[in-house]
Amino acid sequence: MIVNVNKKILIVGLGLLGGSYAKVLKRFGFHISAITRSQSSIDFALREGLIDEGSVEVDPRLVGEADLVIFALYPHIFVEWIETNQHLFKSGALITDVTGVKGSIVYKIQEMLRPDVEFIAAHPMAGREVSGVENSTDKIFNGANYIVTPTEKNTPDAIETCMELGRLLGFSNVTTLSPEEHDEMIGFLSQLTHCIAITLMTCNDKEHMEKFTGDSFRDLTRIARINDLMWSELFVANKAALLEQMNLFLNKFNELKTMLETEDIDGMRAMMRHSTERRALFDKP
Amino acid sequence: MIVNVNKKILIVGLGLLGGSYAKVLKRFGFHISAITRSQSSIDFALREGLIDEGSVEVDPRLVGEADLVIFALYPHIFVEWIETNQHLFKSGALITDVTGVKGSIVYKIQEMLRPDVEFIAAHPMAGREVSGVENSTDKIFNGANYIVTPTEKNTPDAIETCMELGRLLGFSNVTTLSPEEHDEMIGFLSQLTHCIAITLMTCNDKEHMEKFTGDSFRDLTRIARINDLMWSELFVANKAALLEQMNLFLNKFNELKTMLETEDIDGMRAMMRHSTERRALFDKP
Repeated sequence: MIVNVNKKILIVGLGLLGGSYAKVLKRFGFHISAITRSQSSIDFALREGLIDEGSVEVDPRLVGEADLVIFALYPHIFVEWIETNQHLFKSGALITDVTGVKGSIVYKIQEMLRPDVEFIAAHPMAGREVSGVENSTDKIFNGANYIVTPTEKNTPDAIETCMELGRLLGFSNVTTLSPEEHDEMIGFLSQLTHCIAITLMTCNDKEHMEKFTGDSFRDLTRIARINDLMWSELFVANKAALLEQMNLFLNKFNELKTMLETEDIDGMRAMMRHSTERRALFDKP
Repeated sequence: MIVNVNKKILIVGLGLLGGSYAKVLKRFGFHISAITRSQSSIDFALREGLIDEGSVEVDPRLVGEADLVIFALYPHIFVEWIETNQHLFKSGALITDVTGVKGSIVYKIQEMLRPDVEFIAAHPMAGREVSGVENSTDKIFNGANYIVTPTEKNTPDAIETCMELGRLLGFSNVTTLSPEEHDEMIGFLSQLTHCIAITLMTCNDKEHMEKFTGDSFRDLTRIARINDLMWSELFVANKAALLEQMNLFLNKFNELKTMLETEDIDGMRAMMRHSTERRALFDKP
C-alpha cells in the first residue's frame, strides 16, 4: 500500500517525530495531513511545507480520508483518542504509531479497534534532546532502528506495509519483535539507562562538582536531561519489564560493591574483562 | 623553578600520560629523560624526539641529575619505587605524580621520603581509551582539569611549581584540593561512573541486544572498556570514598525503584526535573 503515493497519510501529534515523519514522506509525494493540539505547530508545518493541511480539532474529513494514520502521542492520550474517535476512520484504514512501549498498548488498542481497521504497532528508535515540530529533521532516522511489533491479530500485508514505511523513512535497520521482546529490550537498553542517568545526576548534590567534570560523567548523564511527563508515563507503562532490568542491575552492582568491600581484586578484574569483551559487541558497526 | 628550562626532568613510567608530558615539555626545551620497563617504549620515545635519553633500569645517573621527577606509575609500584630508590634522588629535587587516588598515597610517600626532597601530588584528569607511549598526544590536556593536592607538609614554592607545570602542559583548569576532597570528587565523578558502566555492561547477557543499541546505551557504556589491572587497584586504593559514593547511588536508585513500584508519578517527575536542572550545570562551558 505504502508504495502508492496517491494514498493519504494523516499524522496525529505533530512533535519532533511526527514532524520528521511528515518531512520525509512529503518529499516522496504523499498527501500529508496533521492533527495536533497547537496551532503554531500547524502553522509552522504548513509554512515549511511539511504538510498539505492540518487542524487543531479532530476534523472528521481529515480522519475519514486517511488511508494510513500515524499516531505520535503519549501512550494514554493515544488510547483515549482511539476510544473517542475510531468511528471516524475510513473502512480499511491502516493505523500505526511511534509509542516507545508496546505490551501495555498494542493489545489494548487491537482489542477495542473496529474490525475493518488494522493497527500495526511500530517503534522508531530515534530522538533528539530537543522536541517540537520546529526541530524536525530526517537526520535522526539514519543509523537508527525501526521495530515493528506484530501480534497474531496482524495480517502479513499490514506488517510488510509498516516495515516498508520504516525503510522509506530512512531507518537503517527495520525489523520485527514481539511486544514482549520489545519491552524487555527497551527496558534494558533505553529505560534502565535513563534510570541510571537520573539517579547519578541526583544522588550527590555536593557543590562545585561541575568544575571537575570530565567526559565520563558527561557521557553517563547526557540523557539525565529528560522530559519528565513523557518518561514517567513510559516507565509506568513498562513497569514489570523495567523493574526486572532494574533488579538485574542492582544485583550486579551489589556484587561489585561486595567485591570492593572484601578487596576481591580477582573478582573485580574478571568483571572488568567481561565488561571490556562485551562492550566490543556494542561498537557502532 | 619550572620556568627555568635548564632544569632536568625525569619521567618514571612512559605510558600514555608520561609520554604526553614528555611531548609537551620537550617542546619547551627542557632536558627530558625517562625510566620505564619496556625498551620499545624508550626506543619509540627517542625516535620521536619525546625524550633526550632513557633507560629500562633505574639508572642512578638519570635519577641523581633530575631536578623534577614525575611519576606515572600504578599506585603500589610508585610506593615501592620510592622505598627502594629514594636514596638516589638529588638533594632538593621535587617529586610529583599523576596518580588518580590521593589519600592512600600522598601521606604514605611524604611520611617515608627523605627530608631534603619534597613530594607534591597532582592528578592530571586526562586520558584516552587507548594506552601506551605510542598514543601520546598533547591534545588530551586541552579542556581538562589538573588538580594539585597539597598537604601541610608542602611548601608554597612546591605548590606553585606544580601548578605552573599543569599550566605549561596546557591544562585548562589548574586548581588545588585537599587529598580528601580530591578522593571524594574522583570517587563520585570518575570511579562511580566506571562502576556503573561495567555493571550495566555485564548485568544482562541476553543475546542480540547490540542490534538495537542506540546512543544512550553506547554513551553509558563507553567507559565499560576498561583496564582491569589499573582500575581494580584504583578502586581498592580509594575504597572508603568509593563505597560512600556507591551507597549514595544505591539509595537513590532504590528510591526510584520504589516510586516505580508504587506508580508514584509525581515523585518520579520531581526527580526527573531535579535531574534536568542539575544537568545544566554540567554542560561543557
